[in-house]
Amino acid sequence: MRLGRVIGRVWSTVKSRQFEGRKLLVIQPISADGKDTGQEFVAADAIGAGAGETIYWCRGKEAALAFLPDQVCSDATVVGIVDSIHTGKG
Amino acid sequence: MRLGRVIGRVWSTVKSRQFEGRKLLVIQPISADGKDTGQEFVAADAIGAGAGETIYWCRGKEAALAFLPDQVCSDATVVGIVDSIHTGKG
Amino acid sequence: MRLGRVIGRVWSTVKSRQFEGRKLLVIQPISADGKDTGQEFVAADAIGAGAGETIYWCRGKEAALAFLPDQVCSDATVVGIVDSIHTGKG
Amino acid sequence: MRLGRVIGRVWSTVKSRQFEGRKLLVIQPISADGKDTGQEFVAADAIGAGAGETIYWCRGKEAALAFLPDQVCSDATVVGIVDSIHTGKG
Amino acid sequence: MRLGRVIGRVWSTVKSRQFEGRKLLVIQPISADGKDTGQEFVAADAIGAGAGETIYWCRGKEAALAFLPDQVCSDATVVGIVDSIHTGKG
Repeated sequence: MRLGRVIGRVWSTVKSRQFEGRKLLVIQPISADGKDTGQEFVAADAIGAGAGETIYWCRGKEAALAFLPDQVCSDATVVGIVDSIHTGKG
Repeated sequence: MRLGRVIGRVWSTVKSRQFEGRKLLVIQPISADGKDTGQEFVAADAIGAGAGETIYWCRGKEAALAFLPDQVCSDATVVGIVDSIHTGKG
Repeated sequence: MRLGRVIGRVWSTVKSRQFEGRKLLVIQPISADGKDTGQEFVAADAIGAGAGETIYWCRGKEAALAFLPDQVCSDATVVGIVDSIHTGKG
Repeated sequence: MRLGRVIGRVWSTVKSRQFEGRKLLVIQPISADGKDTGQEFVAADAIGAGAGETIYWCRGKEAALAFLPDQVCSDATVVGIVDSIHTGKG
Repeated sequence: MRLGRVIGRVWSTVKSRQFEGRKLLVIQPISADGKDTGQEFVAADAIGAGAGETIYWCRGKEAALAFLPDQVCSDATVVGIVDSIHTGKG
C-alpha cells in the first residue's frame, strides 16, 4: 500500500456501471514524512475518506478486492485512513 | 484510475479474437490540471468515449473486469468520461 | 495495451512446460509515431506476428488470458498487429 | 520479490475490514548490498517481521495470496525475513 | 517476460509457508545484448536455473501460475533458460 493525501474529487456521468454510486477521489501520493512523491491519480473510495486526510491505498487486483462481494473494476482504492506513522528514519 | 485524453484510434485486422468488435483508442495520460504526463498507449473502450474527451482508465486485471461477463485480455480500459474535477491544489 | 515492434526471437530449451510450443519474440516498445520508448523485452506470441511488424501487446494477468483455455504463465503477450494508427497529435 | 528493511509502522483505525488485526509496516526498499533504492511504502505483515529486519516482500495479487484462505486486499506483503544473501557481484 | 542473469541466492528461515522448499535467486535484469538494466531483485526458481545463467522471468500473477497446481505467492519467477537470442538491432 502507498501513502497519499486526498486533494479532490472527480465527477463523472458516463462511466462503467460498476462505478455507479462510488465516490472517486483525487489522490496525491506522499512519503512517510508527508512530501509529495508523484503524479496525482483517481482512486475509488472504500472507507469514507474526505478532503485533506492522509490515507493509504492499494492498487491492482487488490483494489478490486476491497469492494467484495461487489465486482468493481477499480485499480486504485483508498482502504484506510492513517492515524499516525512512526519510522526510525531521521 | 488515471486521467487521460483520447487522441486517436488504432485499426487492427489480425488480433486476439477477444478483441473482435472492441474499439481501440490511443490515450494520452494527463494530470488533474490537463498537462501531458507520459507516453501515449492503446486502451480498449468500455463506455463509448470519443476523440478529445477527458477520460479515466484502469489497468491490470481490472481493465479486463470492465467487460464482464465477456473475457477480454485488455490491460488498459477506458471506464469513465470526466465531467469535472475539483482539487484543492493551487 | 502498448505499441511495439518485433525485433527478434528467443530460443530456449529449459523452460516452464507452460511455454512448450509457444513462440517467444523480442519486442521493442515504440510510441504512436514509431519512436523507441524503452527497454526491449520478451513476449509470447498469441497471433502469429513476425519480424519487423508493428504490434500491440498486453501485460499482467491479461497476457495470460490471451491463451485461454490454456494456462500460460506469460506476463507479456502480443495480441494484435497494427494496420494503421491515427492520432490528432502534431 | 524485492528486498527491504522494516523502518516503521502505521496505525489506522478507519480501514477496510479486511485489514482488521493485520500489522502494517513501513518498508524501505533496498538493494542486495543494503543501499536504499526507492520510496518507502506500507506493507502488510504475513510473517511477524520487526523493526530493522531485512525482509523480502511481494506485490500485486501475490501479496494477497500470502494470506490465504483469508481474503486481504493487500498489494504489498512481507513474506520472508532474510538470513543471508550471497551474490557474485563485486 | 524480461531477460536477466542469475547473480546470487537468498537464504531465509522465517518465511511464508508457500515458499517452503523453493529456491530464491538474486536476478540482475539485462538487455538483449547482455547489459545490466536495473535493480537486482529476488525471484523464485521454477526450472532449476543456476549461477551465471541467462534466464527469462515473469512477474505478477503469472509468476504464481508457474507453480500450478501449487499456490505460491511469488511475484517474480524464473520460467526459462535462454539458449540464444537473435535480434535485428545493430
